[in-house]
Amino acid sequence: MPQKTLKDLFIEEMRDTYSSETQTAANLIKMIQATTSPQLKQLFQAHQVESRQHVERLTQGFQKLGVSPEGNFCEATQGLVKEAEEVMGESLPGELLDVALVMAAQKVEHYEIASYGSLHAVALSCGLSEVAKLLEQTLQEEKATDEKLTAIAESEINKTAASKAA
Amino acid sequence: MPQKTLKDLFIEEMRDTYSSETQTAANLIKMIQATTSPQLKQLFQAHQVESRQHVERLTQGFQKLGVSPEGNFCEATQGLVKEAEEVMGESLPGELLDVALVMAAQKVEHYEIASYGSLHAVALSCGLSEVAKLLEQTLQEEKATDEKLTAIAESEINKTAASKAA
Repeated sequence: MPQKTLKDLFIEEMRDTYSSETQTAANLIKMIQATTSPQLKQLFQAHQVESRQHVERLTQGFQKLGVSPEGNFCEATQGLVKEAEEVMGESLPGELLDVALVMAAQKVEHYEIASYGSLHAVALSCGLSEVAKLLEQTLQEEKATDEKLTAIAESEINKTAASKAA
Repeated sequence: MPQKTLKDLFIEEMRDTYSSETQTAANLIKMIQATTSPQLKQLFQAHQVESRQHVERLTQGFQKLGVSPEGNFCEATQGLVKEAEEVMGESLPGELLDVALVMAAQKVEHYEIASYGSLHAVALSCGLSEVAKLLEQTLQEEKATDEKLTAIAESEINKTAASKAA
């Protein structure tokens, strides 16, 4: 077997991220149904639309590289999704469920920020500028979603939960 | 059973983060041994010292809240650690292993950035200002470590791996 190259490692990481996007898309549907906050529901729905675009960009990347997207199941994302599912199965009061959903969503966003950040840097080192551009677009959208989640948590979700408990 | 409060949810999340710190500390020892880059080894070692401080701060937080740190095993971190272990078990050439170790380390950092970010925001909403201060200190250190990892990857690790493949 020939020795692995940086490009091979890059493709493996792209496949891990593809698996992550696929798993989190299925989870996002449940989170949209579960939240009691109209503002959070709207953000999750907007992110669902964006996530389809993220998968599409990864698919374009795989096409440019001439490889298939399948082959790596992302176990870390499985753990993140499992945590979100457990929270949704707990029958929490709505205002607490929303706090927990934001927490779970931000962990997923940060997983993806780390993944796309690394992928973008390695793509540039490998001279894959077109693929790097696709990854950079998604990276910026993941960061923006994370910031919007922080804003919703601080301006609404956490305050509502704290006031109900008082 | 009385209905769960925001503070209960906060304590659960603190315990999840405590479990995460404990698991990643054990993994960091292996990563220090595995890396072939003196610069990365040094950063991992510095982060190991910081991580002990993070556990200490969480312990102080639990003491202030009058609860024990145990009780939540963090499955998401287990997935992240498993990915790092798989990479270390692959017998990759040193320069590729270093790229993969940075990727794995940044995923852990981002998990912790998300955790401490949420914990800090909820602590403030609960009026737990002393605990919030402890969490904020760790949050800033996790962000700084992530930035240092990006700098090492871009200035050295990725370039070395790309040049070896050329």
